[in-house]
Amino acid sequence: MKLVRYGQSGQEKPGLIDADGTLRDLSGQVADIAGDVLGDAGLEALRALDPADLPVVEGSPRLGACVGNVGKMLCIGLNYRDHAEETGLPIPDHPILFLKANSAIVGPDDDVILPRGSEKGDWEVELAAVIGKTAKYVTPEEALDHVAGYCVANDVSERGFQMDLSGQWTKGKSCDTFGPIGPWLVTRDEVPDPQDLDMSVDVNGKRMQTGNSATMIFTVAEIIAHLSELMTLHPGDVILTGTPPGVGMGMKPPVYLKDGDVMEIWIEGLGRQRQKVRADA
Amino acid sequence: MKLVRYGQSGQEKPGLIDADGTLRDLSGQVADIAGDVLGDAGLEALRALDPADLPVVEGSPRLGACVGNVGKMLCIGLNYRDHAEETGLPIPDHPILFLKANSAIVGPDDDVILPRGSEKGDWEVELAAVIGKTAKYVTPEEALDHVAGYCVANDVSERGFQMDLSGQWTKGKSCDTFGPIGPWLVTRDEVPDPQDLDMSVDVNGKRMQTGNSATMIFTVAEIIAHLSELMTLHPGDVILTGTPPGVGMGMKPPVYLKDGDVMEIWIEGLGRQRQKVRADA
Repeated sequence: MKLVRYGQSGQEKPGLIDADGTLRDLSGQVADIAGDVLGDAGLEALRALDPADLPVVEGSPRLGACVGNVGKMLCIGLNYRDHAEETGLPIPDHPILFLKANSAIVGPDDDVILPRGSEKGDWEVELAAVIGKTAKYVTPEEALDHVAGYCVANDVSERGFQMDLSGQWTKGKSCDTFGPIGPWLVTRDEVPDPQDLDMSVDVNGKRMQTGNSATMIFTVAEIIAHLSELMTLHPGDVILTGTPPGVGMGMKPPVYLKDGDVMEIWIEGLGRQRQKVRADA
Repeated sequence: MKLVRYGQSGQEKPGLIDADGTLRDLSGQVADIAGDVLGDAGLEALRALDPADLPVVEGSPRLGACVGNVGKMLCIGLNYRDHAEETGLPIPDHPILFLKANSAIVGPDDDVILPRGSEKGDWEVELAAVIGKTAKYVTPEEALDHVAGYCVANDVSERGFQMDLSGQWTKGKSCDTFGPIGPWLVTRDEVPDPQDLDMSVDVNGKRMQTGNSATMIFTVAEIIAHLSELMTLHPGDVILTGTPPGVGMGMKPPVYLKDGDVMEIWIEGLGRQRQKVRADA
């Protein structure tokens, strides 16, 4: 299933995209794509529905973040060997973790706003795993059973804030609008191998970033197992699993986002995001 | 006012502590100590009540975290000159920011659980400011008007997870139960100067940490102003403002938490926390 949240920001309704690509309303079935709905029983109940019985949503409403009520947004850094090399940082022994503030979460096609003083905005396409079932001390072998599904994320970053403001990356990762997720949550049964997904970023129509999740240093399963040793993962937690080579910071000379740029973020089977960049006045 | 949340974890009710120290029920007035209730109008409405009219809560119920529905928990590192020196790290040019996962938040007297593999659990008494009014691009002069009130926080830390697992402090800060806040939220009108508050930590009855918020490198107002340049601060966001000297890591030799230890965390005018430490089996 492809699950979505549509409508005005803060008032999104749950929906699904049927086999014909039509948006259908799920608000008669569930309150949100969140919490218990993401568990095995919740998803099974949705899967038992006949999409043809669900109301068609007319028009082209805005899509919100594909998961509501996110508990925490856990982000893994330097998880592609080539990306670690382009940043000049050593290959880590364990998954590097930082958190992105939940207030950064937006819909897949919402504008990305560069805050005042931002001169080094950057893109990062990332495969995101959404937790469906509580995970604590799980093994890599068990880990993917705790995933509700996967989606595209853009781990938008401000490299000056990240690197030049006395440390801890979260400063450059948590700005408002720096966390587009979606367009849809693809349930895990439709993602046979999360470690074999092509992905890309185009900026103003030019291909900037390409990769495949096969080259991750730590697999999604290994990441979830590791995080679950540190803290409980709850339904609705979102895990960003790192980005492949091709970020603006790694180019020679570096290329950073500016007002009016358009980013297109794509992962095989998970859909496409499109964000216009605006500089905050 | 001293605002509290009491009852079983996940089912806390709002309350207040009256001038006699009696817990009174606010659940007829507000749903939670959260969101709009923390704004100027929300607090004014509570202030207009006569506490004697509110039902007395019998017995000694558990206290939960004094703020509900926390949006993000923003933590400042190395914000006391002497603490920066004891850790051997340089004095930062800007407030160092990391995030603590919301799933770490617990009540002031709940057990603190050391996760499996933890050998370097540590305490950090911190003055926490709770945002009451949305803040974006505010100046230090305006910043404290955006604070609903203040509370005690223990920024419980696992130094091995923080330092030895390939970086970014959040790993050692986000374990379940590592974020006790409370006992109560003291509204800002009752905290005339947040930069002149004594604080301490006792472990097993022995004084380990002492300090006064007068020795912060960046004041609460400067921290809020800085953070508001990076991202919007929303009602219910909690900001931990750093810890004074006396953490276990800084002792010679280091002293770390072990199963059965008892921490008592105190800030002048803001009350006292008491946590028993348990090692997860």
